[in-house]
Parts: sequence; C-alpha cells; structure tokens
Amino acid sequence: MADKIRIAIVGYGNLGRGVEAACDKCPDMDLVGIFTRRGPESVKAKSDAPVYYFDDIFTMKDKIDVVVLCGGSATDLPVQTPMLAEHFNVIDSFDTHAKIPEHFEKVNAASVKGSTVSIISVGWDPGLFSLNRLISQAVLPEGRDYTFWGKGVSQGHSDAIRRIAGVIDARQYTIPVEEALESVRACENPELTTRQKHTRECFVVAAEGADLAKIEAEIVNMPNYFADYDTTVHFISKEELDRDHSGIPHGGMVIRSGKTGFDNSNNHVIEFGLKLDSNPEFTSSVLVAYARAAYRLRQEGASGCKTVFDIAPGYLHPESPDELRKKIL
Amino acid sequence: MADKIRIAIVGYGNLGRGVEAACDKCPDMDLVGIFTRRGPESVKAKSDAPVYYFDDIFTMKDKIDVVVLCGGSATDLPVQTPMLAEHFNVIDSFDTHAKIPEHFEKVNAASVKGSTVSIISVGWDPGLFSLNRLISQAVLPEGRDYTFWGKGVSQGHSDAIRRIAGVIDARQYTIPVEEALESVRACENPELTTRQKHTRECFVVAAEGADLAKIEAEIVNMPNYFADYDTTVHFISKEELDRDHSGIPHGGMVIRSGKTGFDNSNNHVIEFGLKLDSNPEFTSSVLVAYARAAYRLRQEGASGCKTVFDIAPGYLHPESPDELRKKIL
Repeated sequence: MADKIRIAIVGYGNLGRGVEAACDKCPDMDLVGIFTRRGPESVKAKSDAPVYYFDDIFTMKDKIDVVVLCGGSATDLPVQTPMLAEHFNVIDSFDTHAKIPEHFEKVNAASVKGSTVSIISVGWDPGLFSLNRLISQAVLPEGRDYTFWGKGVSQGHSDAIRRIAGVIDARQYTIPVEEALESVRACENPELTTRQKHTRECFVVAAEGADLAKIEAEIVNMPNYFADYDTTVHFISKEELDRDHSGIPHGGMVIRSGKTGFDNSNNHVIEFGLKLDSNPEFTSSVLVAYARAAYRLRQEGASGCKTVFDIAPGYLHPESPDELRKKIL
Repeated sequence: MADKIRIAIVGYGNLGRGVEAACDKCPDMDLVGIFTRRGPESVKAKSDAPVYYFDDIFTMKDKIDVVVLCGGSATDLPVQTPMLAEHFNVIDSFDTHAKIPEHFEKVNAASVKGSTVSIISVGWDPGLFSLNRLISQAVLPEGRDYTFWGKGVSQGHSDAIRRIAGVIDARQYTIPVEEALESVRACENPELTTRQKHTRECFVVAAEGADLAKIEAEIVNMPNYFADYDTTVHFISKEELDRDHSGIPHGGMVIRSGKTGFDNSNNHVIEFGLKLDSNPEFTSSVLVAYARAAYRLRQEGASGCKTVFDIAPGYLHPESPDELRKKIL
C-alpha cells in the first residue's frame, strides 16, 4: 500500500466530527490532527487523533497532506480557506451560492501562489447536486431541471425560530411538495413558485406562559424564511423535541426532464436523490472523498482552486483506474 | 462564438440517427458527415448532413474534430474504434462489460500513437450508471450498491425470442422487482438473486398454427436469457405489437445505501434513476456531450483513451467554468 494520505481537520463541530468518522472508514487515510481555536484542553476527540490549537497547524506543514476545513460559510471559511490554501491542499464546503465566484477567486490566488490544490464548495448542495445539474443539462440540453430539498432539517430556519421571544428551542423541516415532484417526474415542465415546491414544518418549544398565537404569527410571516411558504407550527414539550427531533436528517433530489429527437417526441427523466440520516456526516463523507482527489491531483503537479466540476470522478475512489474499469464501469 | 465542434457519425442505425438529432440540439456543434458501409445511395439522412462511404472518412481528417462511433459492440466497435482512434478523436458506446479492459488497451495504443483523445464505453450503462456507482462507493465506503434495469426493452432478449421457430416477432421488457427496490431503499442491504431483482415480460407474435405452449416453454427455459428469471409470455397479434410496443423505452436505477459514524448509526441512500422514452436517443445524447469533452481535452493537448471516470464533468457542458460556478454550483 502506498503512503497514507495525511488528513488534518480544522474546526470540530458536527462537520469536523463527521470528517473524523469518515476518515476512519478509509484505509488509505490517516487523521493526523484536529485543529481548533478552543484548543486541546476543551476538546475531546472521539478517535485517538491529537488535538492542537489552530495556530499550530502552520508548524506542521510537512506532516499534513490535505486540510479539511469544517467551519461555517458565514465567517470561518471566507477567512480560513484562503489563509490555509497558501500553505496546504485544502477542501471546504463553502455553501453561500451567491458568493462562490468571489470565494473561488481568493482561494485560487492563494493556491496558485502556494502551489497547492484547493477544492471548494464540496458536499451535496453545492456538491453532488451541482454535479447532477451539470451532467443532466449537458446530456439533455432541451429540458429543465428542478432541485428539491428535504425532507430535512434546516439549521438556518431552526435558528431563526429560536431567536423569537418566548421560544426555548425549535426544529424546522423543509418538505418537498408531492404534487410538484409528480408533475416534474411526469415531464410536465411546470412553472413552480417557491410555495409550490416546498412546505415548512416547525416544532417549537415555548416558554411557560408565552403567547403561542403571537409566536406562530411571527414564524409564518417571517420574511425570506417563512413568508413565501405554507408553514405549519406545532408546539411541543422539550422532552418531545429531544426524543423525536434530535437527528439532523436531510436529502432531496435533482430532477431534469428533457426531450430528444428532431420532433421532440421522446421524453427522458434523470433523477438523483439523497436520503440522509445525518446531513453533517454525509457532507463530511463527500469532503473526505474529495480530499483524496486533492491529494492525487497535487501528486500529479496540479495547483489552483477547483470545484466538483473540475475533478474527474476516478480521483475520488481508492481503487486504481484499471480496477475501476474492470469492476464498475 | 468559438469555432464549432465538427462531428462525424459512423454507422447510421438507431444510435447514429440519435446522434444526428442530438447534434441538432447543440449550437456549438456541426454535423459534417455521416459515414456508412452502405454508402450514400442507400441512406437518407434526416438532417442535411452529407452521407459518405465509410472509407472516405480517412480523406477528411482535417474536416472532422470528433468521430462518434455508432456501431455495435459485438463486431463493429472492436475493429472500428482502434482503427479510427489512430486518426481521429473518437467516442464509442462499447458495452460488453467483460471486454472493456481489452478494448481499452487497444484503443489507448491507437490514440497514443496518433495523439488523439478517445473515450470508450459512453452511454448510461456503461456510462452515467458507472459514474454513480463510482461516486457513491467513494462517498460511502461502508455500504452496498445495486443496479436495477428497466422497465425497458432488451434488444438482445427480444432477438433471442425471434430466433425461436414459429416466432414472427417479439418484444421483451426487463422489469425491476418492486419489493427488491423497496428493501434496498430501506437500507436492508438484501442479498438478491438474479430472480429476485428483475422479472422478464415477453410479447410474442407467433406464426399461424404454431405450438404456443412449446414456444412459451422454449422462452422461459432458455439458459442465460430467461431460465434464471420469472418470465411471463403474452401472445399478441402483429398489429398489437406494432401499436403498443414499437418504442424502445428503458431506464433503471443505481442505488447505494451506506452507513456513517463510528457506531454506524446513520444510514444514507444515494439513488440515481433514469426513465427513458428512447434508449438509443438518450445514449446518443450522452455520446454527444462526451464528444464535447473529447474535443476540449484534445485542444488542451491530452491524448490516449479515457472513460467517463477520467473526464472532469465541466468538460461536458457548453458553458465556461466561470459561468458554471456562478449558475449551477
């Protein structure tokens, strides 16, 4: 077996713990360290990987092949990814779609300067869903694609509810509308409004004596988050929330329907779907597969920032091109 | 707009006609010729592309960017792809899974010698299904994948029935078993026999006075083709066959379920599915998207034989990397 790929994790929240577990399933990888701003005293790793202060990573350049960044897209990654990309091959899951071009430019400049490979916006959306949008558009140029999310927990929407006065805790599920899915799968190419594509279901723990009607009104009328959706609110106890809604499931589907033939007489549907018990653990698993790709690309001399669009799929799989052609092509 | 990609089609059966129609949907492509062994007198193209004798292609090396080979895997492609790969960038849909490594070696030698790019075994299986097997294995190393085909027409099985004495015409459908699909999607990781995965349904036109019971017995007991499946046989009239079974639909799904977390407590399902009105027209559309990739790779100086595993997805889509990051990542 060739040398193992030496992985470092930066940030040890849900995503970092997911990467730790995902590395454990890859015999070709070695988790050499977990780096956090909180430092080793306040972090107990699940594996036997050592924990370091974030700043120590710069002293370990020759011990790390790929850094997997596990911070948030709002404030962590815009700073950390370019900073680290100058010194390490890096992977991140930057998911603020509108800011991807700007992030790409910064990370690319750092990677070119440092002769490293960086892969940004890795996960399932952006990530595997993006791949499927791209491939299905390329194969069926005359057609239309739709992305549905859920059923799954939206952390951003759950947080928005928690900020309402009188709310102790909350969990929000995004749910695709079944009729919309059916119409898309039937090649009807529907025009769908935001409201027609997804509904939102909220489970809310209110403080004793709180005005439930007022909380519900605040939720369903909240601009951007809920006002454009049909939203249902259920008030439940803290015990019920912890018992029934402690998971972080998610998923969804990318569906493209398109026509072929000179007379457009034939319809085709391409559908890619995910059903995930744990959104962060699945995202982490995608990050780790792309860490393998970053390592191999750097071994071949590549440098600069890439996305899932730039990575030949073979780089993701531990087996050799020969074996892959023989076994799964 | 940059120069158009000049496409040539070799072979003008269902697949060749599909490539002709698919090129028509790609503003960045120009179909410069259809090459057949039958020659221009006996072929009427649907588009205004000129038709030539196969041998004439070697006189047109500077007028063609990519040759899309549309012959069969049994006898045409094993000869034609290596022969043409020495002189042209080529795409084929070679689908004899067991012989892919041997075909790859021959085509690669020709492409290296001629400094061309060849992409073999392009379509949906091998092709997009293979891609999904690879990606889902890489993302969920602890798991299991299943490929189901159908509902769709199997030409090979239909042909096998037509060879039986007393059979005038026949159409065979491969159908996934619903219970097997449900079990796989429920992460039960079932062990499935051939019989448990698919059923086969046959529509047969028998000659007048033929022994129907004998034909049915010959079908359901035919080794390799039917003996391992639950097969149903319907005898219908030629009119019914032509009216209800003239299409060539197909499809299927690649499903992988896998576990993540140190305690394997989270299940995930990745599913890629196709529902195709016309198997050859869809396969052709995939071929044309990969023709774009072959052209671009050759422009960058690449050479040698590739498969879908070696092609970064961005090469398939007509838009620029910048635009793709902005619009669909």
